[in-house]
Amino acid sequence: MPDNRRVTVRDIAAETGVSIATVSRVLNDHANVAPRTRDLVLRAVERSKMRVTEPGRPRTVYVRCPYVLTDYFGLIVSSIAETLKRHGLRVLLDAGEASQHADALAGLPDEPGVDAAILILPPEDGDQLVALSQTDLPFVVVDPRTPPPPDIAAVSAAHFAGARALTGHLVGLGHRDIGVIAGPEEWLASDARLAGHRAALSQAGVLPMAHHLWHVEPTTEAGHRTAAELLDHPERPTAIVCFNDKLAVGTVQAARERGLRIPDDLSIAGFDDIDISRATDPPLTTVRQPLQEMGRIAVTQLMRMLDGHQPEALHIELATTLVVRKSTGPALKQ
Amino acid sequence: MPDNRRVTVRDIAAETGVSIATVSRVLNDHANVAPRTRDLVLRAVERSKMRVTEPGRPRTVYVRCPYVLTDYFGLIVSSIAETLKRHGLRVLLDAGEASQHADALAGLPDEPGVDAAILILPPEDGDQLVALSQTDLPFVVVDPRTPPPPDIAAVSAAHFAGARALTGHLVGLGHRDIGVIAGPEEWLASDARLAGHRAALSQAGVLPMAHHLWHVEPTTEAGHRTAAELLDHPERPTAIVCFNDKLAVGTVQAARERGLRIPDDLSIAGFDDIDISRATDPPLTTVRQPLQEMGRIAVTQLMRMLDGHQPEALHIELATTLVVRKSTGPALKQ
Repeated sequence: MPDNRRVTVRDIAAETGVSIATVSRVLNDHANVAPRTRDLVLRAVERSKMRVTEPGRPRTVYVRCPYVLTDYFGLIVSSIAETLKRHGLRVLLDAGEASQHADALAGLPDEPGVDAAILILPPEDGDQLVALSQTDLPFVVVDPRTPPPPDIAAVSAAHFAGARALTGHLVGLGHRDIGVIAGPEEWLASDARLAGHRAALSQAGVLPMAHHLWHVEPTTEAGHRTAAELLDHPERPTAIVCFNDKLAVGTVQAARERGLRIPDDLSIAGFDDIDISRATDPPLTTVRQPLQEMGRIAVTQLMRMLDGHQPEALHIELATTLVVRKSTGPALKQ
Repeated sequence: MPDNRRVTVRDIAAETGVSIATVSRVLNDHANVAPRTRDLVLRAVERSKMRVTEPGRPRTVYVRCPYVLTDYFGLIVSSIAETLKRHGLRVLLDAGEASQHADALAGLPDEPGVDAAILILPPEDGDQLVALSQTDLPFVVVDPRTPPPPDIAAVSAAHFAGARALTGHLVGLGHRDIGVIAGPEEWLASDARLAGHRAALSQAGVLPMAHHLWHVEPTTEAGHRTAAELLDHPERPTAIVCFNDKLAVGTVQAARERGLRIPDDLSIAGFDDIDISRATDPPLTTVRQPLQEMGRIAVTQLMRMLDGHQPEALHIELATTLVVRKSTGPALKQ
C-alpha cells in the first residue's frame, strides 16, 4: 500500500526541531505554545501544506515533457506513467511544445495537489532547477539538456559511451572521414556525443574535420538538408553519423537522391533506435537508448525522495547499446 | 478565466428541483428544511461532491490511453494535453499497456479530483461505457473501438471514406486483385475501413477475394509475416492495402526480401501517415488521420459538457486525406 500522506506531524517536528507533542498542540490550536514556536511550526506546515494529501487522494506526480509525444518522448512518458501507476501514484501530465514557453517551474511548488515532479529534457537552465530544488518539492530530471547542478537528481543515457562505440564501429570499418550531423550545440546530449565521437577518432589517431560537423535541429528535414551539404562537399565523407534517427532518415533520403548506395558508397548511422530506424532501406545502424529504463529509474529515485530518503545516486547514467544493422559497411577505397 | 467550480448551488437546485435558497439552507445546516428535501439535496451533493473542486484547484481531466504512446497515440495525447492546458484544465494521465487490464472505468466517478474524462480507444465494451454515462462524470471517447452507444460523445476519423478513397486510387491505377492486411476483426476501425475498401471495389464491379484478407495485430512484425503469406500465394495480389503504416512497413520489407520492385511489381499502401510512412523507400501512399484535430475536438466537446451544455453532436467523424506517394503505381499487366 502506498503511503498517501507525505507530510506527517513527525516530519514537521523533525523539520522545526520541536517535539511531536508541540506540533500537535499547534495544529490543534491549543493555547499553551510560545508564539515564536507556533509561528515556526505554522510556517513549516504552510510550506508543506500544498502537498499534505487529503486522505484517499493518491499522491500525484507532475510530469512535464514540453514536446510532442512521438516515439522518443512518448516511450519515456509511457514508462513513467506505467511505473508510477504500479506504485499507486497518479500522473499530472504537462506535454506539448506550447509548454516550452510557459514558466512552469516557478509556480510548481504552489500547484495544488502536486506531491513531486519529473521533468523530461527541461528547457529551463540550471539556475531555475536550483531554485526549484530549494523548495520542498521532490523532483527528478530525465535526460537533462545541460549538465545538471550537483544537488539535483537526474537520469540520462550514456551519450559519451554510446557515441564512442558508434564511431569506434565506423573506424573499425576503415572510415576516417566521418561527417557528423549533431543536435543543437548547447545540448548536453550533443556535447557528450560529440566528445564520444572525438574520443573514438582520437584513439585511432584521426583528427575530426571541422567542416564536416553540423549542429542542426533534430528533424528529418534538417537531416536531409544538412546531408545534402555534406554530400555535395568536394571532400565528401565516407560515413555520416547522425545524433538521432530522424536526422539519419533525412540523410538516407539525400544519399538516395544522389544515387549513392548505402552502405557501399556511404555508411549512415543514427542514434536512439526508434521505430523509423527499422523502416529505412537498409535499416539503420544506431545506438539504442534505454528510454523505458530511464523512466523506471526516474520513478524509483523519486519514490525514495518521497519516502524521505536521499536518492541512491544523484546523477545516474544508463548504458546504451550499439545496434549494428545494414546501413554501415566498409569504407570505400579512395 | 476558466470557471474552476463545476457544481454550484444552482446546479444542485436544478438537479433536485428545489429552490436555490433551500439548497443553501441545507448546505449551511439550517434546521428549517423538511427531512425528505434535506436528504434529496444531500444525496445530490454527495453524488457531485467528488467533483466540486476546492477553490484554486484547476479542473482536472482524466485522460486514459492504455497503450504505449508512440506516434499515433502520442500525437492524440499531446494534442489533448495542449488543448486542455489552453483552457486552463489539467491532465491526469493513465497510459501504457498495463492499464488495459485494469478496471479503470468502474471506479472513475469516485476518483478524487477528477472532473471529466477523455477515453482514447477504450478497450471496454459499450455496456461499460453506458454504465459510465449513467454517472454524472462528463466524458468523451476518442477513436472508439466498437460503435459507440448512441448517447455517448465520440470523436473518430472517417475510416470508411478514407479506405474507400485509398482503394479507389488503386482501382484507378488498374488494380483488381488487392490484398488487405487489416487490424483486429472486432475493431470498429477495421470494420469501417474494410467496408470502405469493398465499396470502392464494388463501384468498379470487382468482388473482393476472401483469401487475400487477413486480420492481424497492427504491428510491423505482423505486417511482415502476413505479407509473406500474401506474396507467396499462387495468386499474388498486385497491390496490398495495410490498415496502418506499421503493417505497411512490414509489407515493404517482405516485398524487398522477394526482390519485388515497389511499385512496379507491387503497390503498397498504409493508413495513418505517421513518421515511418516517409522513412520507407519508396515513401508510402497512405491515409492521413486527423490525430491532432481529434484531440482538439474531443476537448471542445468536453468543455461544452463541463459547462452544462449538450455537445454539438454526439458522434463526430473527422475527414481523412489520401496522401499519394511513390509506393503505389499502375497495376502490372498480367
